[in-house]
Amino acid sequence: MNKKDVVLGVDIGGTNTAFGYVDREGNLQAEGGMKTEADRPSAEFFERLHNEAETLFKSICGNYSLVGIGLGAPNANYYKGTIEQPPNLSWDYVDVVAALKRWYSIPVALTNDANAAALGEMLFGAAKGMKNFIVITLGTGVGSGIVANGELIYGHDGFAGEIGHTTIVPNGRQCGCGRRGCLETYASASGICRTMTELLQTKTTPSELRTMSPDQITSKRIFEAAQHGDALALEAFDMTGRYLGTKLTDSVAHTSPEAIILFGGLAAAGDFIFTPTKKYMEEYMLNIFKNKVRLLPSGLPKGNSAILGAAALIWKELLKA
Amino acid sequence: MNKKDVVLGVDIGGTNTAFGYVDREGNLQAEGGMKTEADRPSAEFFERLHNEAETLFKSICGNYSLVGIGLGAPNANYYKGTIEQPPNLSWDYVDVVAALKRWYSIPVALTNDANAAALGEMLFGAAKGMKNFIVITLGTGVGSGIVANGELIYGHDGFAGEIGHTTIVPNGRQCGCGRRGCLETYASASGICRTMTELLQTKTTPSELRTMSPDQITSKRIFEAAQHGDALALEAFDMTGRYLGTKLTDSVAHTSPEAIILFGGLAAAGDFIFTPTKKYMEEYMLNIFKNKVRLLPSGLPKGNSAILGAAALIWKELLKA
Repeated sequence: MNKKDVVLGVDIGGTNTAFGYVDREGNLQAEGGMKTEADRPSAEFFERLHNEAETLFKSICGNYSLVGIGLGAPNANYYKGTIEQPPNLSWDYVDVVAALKRWYSIPVALTNDANAAALGEMLFGAAKGMKNFIVITLGTGVGSGIVANGELIYGHDGFAGEIGHTTIVPNGRQCGCGRRGCLETYASASGICRTMTELLQTKTTPSELRTMSPDQITSKRIFEAAQHGDALALEAFDMTGRYLGTKLTDSVAHTSPEAIILFGGLAAAGDFIFTPTKKYMEEYMLNIFKNKVRLLPSGLPKGNSAILGAAALIWKELLKA
Repeated sequence: MNKKDVVLGVDIGGTNTAFGYVDREGNLQAEGGMKTEADRPSAEFFERLHNEAETLFKSICGNYSLVGIGLGAPNANYYKGTIEQPPNLSWDYVDVVAALKRWYSIPVALTNDANAAALGEMLFGAAKGMKNFIVITLGTGVGSGIVANGELIYGHDGFAGEIGHTTIVPNGRQCGCGRRGCLETYASASGICRTMTELLQTKTTPSELRTMSPDQITSKRIFEAAQHGDALALEAFDMTGRYLGTKLTDSVAHTSPEAIILFGGLAAAGDFIFTPTKKYMEEYMLNIFKNKVRLLPSGLPKGNSAILGAAALIWKELLKA
């Protein structure tokens, strides 16, 4: 009987790690999860991951052949196969590929979450068949994965695609990176909270969020207020879309993508974020690019997009070979 | 006797057109030039170009075999082989490849000047062996050619690489493109003249350029004044380097290049432009990219760089095949 090829896709997060077996068509055949326990040594993590993944594989193994492992992780370096000084993980430097090669002799590759998302969209999602596109992940921060000529851009050092740390407001908001005015400080989930707090301080417009302290204000609450028609919440989305949309014209001027895909938490706000982003993007776009670039939501199934992205990384490698 | 393969490289400018035969190593074996006469129909231009190029080829032909034609031209579209609404040329839309195929059955390709410059640097100049780099052309305007994964980025529509039209000052100087605050309005030869004029208006510092009217001030004169130690001219270069250097960090965040090559008129000012550009670029760079990106002058011989760039375009195609 012919076995079906699958890869193991792993998404390593600060708190939880999700994994699953994904076939060539992007179907998740089985999935599992575990605590990352990022305060424990990384060796323990990989030992547990291997055991959990093996157990899951045995439950489906009669029909499948494991052909590769792809991982998405913060601060992952594709060229070196390492994780370096990841935020929210106490591991300083981990050679991930070497750690997994103890048990596996199949191809292993890893990259950061945004690059994995871009590859996921290209193989299984909204960017199927596209050779030039950009994925922007709007989470706590802003990440990006850029594909040109059908290939993900890792750049010279493996860290390309930091659109979240391009400058939208010179001398603007303080960013976690140490600089000021980065796109991430305006267009992320935390950025829209800062915008909302500013609006509450500088305007007198009534808002259901006025009774909350700044640290109670979350992007989810702003979204809910916007759904209720809250004028200030709607203005916060409009401003966020303006920051993002105008700045995306810079990215278009670099690589002239066919589409920009908005991915992650804040993108789930749908029209509240897509409509102003598209409007200001077109308004500000250089003439030769006007009305050429599609702004799309992710085409990956929600809960599983990170596993599919990690799996896509290694499927892309395998299909190239 | 074995013939040596050469390609015809053609640089079409608003006033003059230069062409020459270039071998695989980037040696210019013979060169010629003619007036573009851009107010005459494009068909006449290509007829003359063919005749002139043939005459030149006959003068060297015993030893050479012509294997391709590469052209650099304003508003050239690589995918379509066309020139579309070029500035400074009265031709509305020209199918260049079709025009040349009347006489030639060898491969023909064209792209814009900045992309040709990038390919020239990659094959014959400062970017030899590099797979990720950016060329910035600092002429009357600012152009760019971006190479990632060893391939020039043309983007979805063939017009990628418009870094000159990314925004450095929101609501800043009026740009020829209709928008405001584009890098081109600050970091080009015309941009430094605008900066100099502003400095003369807003400061009382003595300067040898004070006796000139704004339209007498050229980038060459600012360069000469800087060589004489003129404080305002030096400040104009410092400001220009600051605009350019800080903005280049955005480009680095996109594609993480190994090097950025400054090319064209203003780059010839050497240390006056390189020193402040490098200083502000490093000062403003995202930590993970600090001190990783080299800032280099062109490695192509001056007068011939445009012909070599156009020739590199078609050599790159031929070597791929």
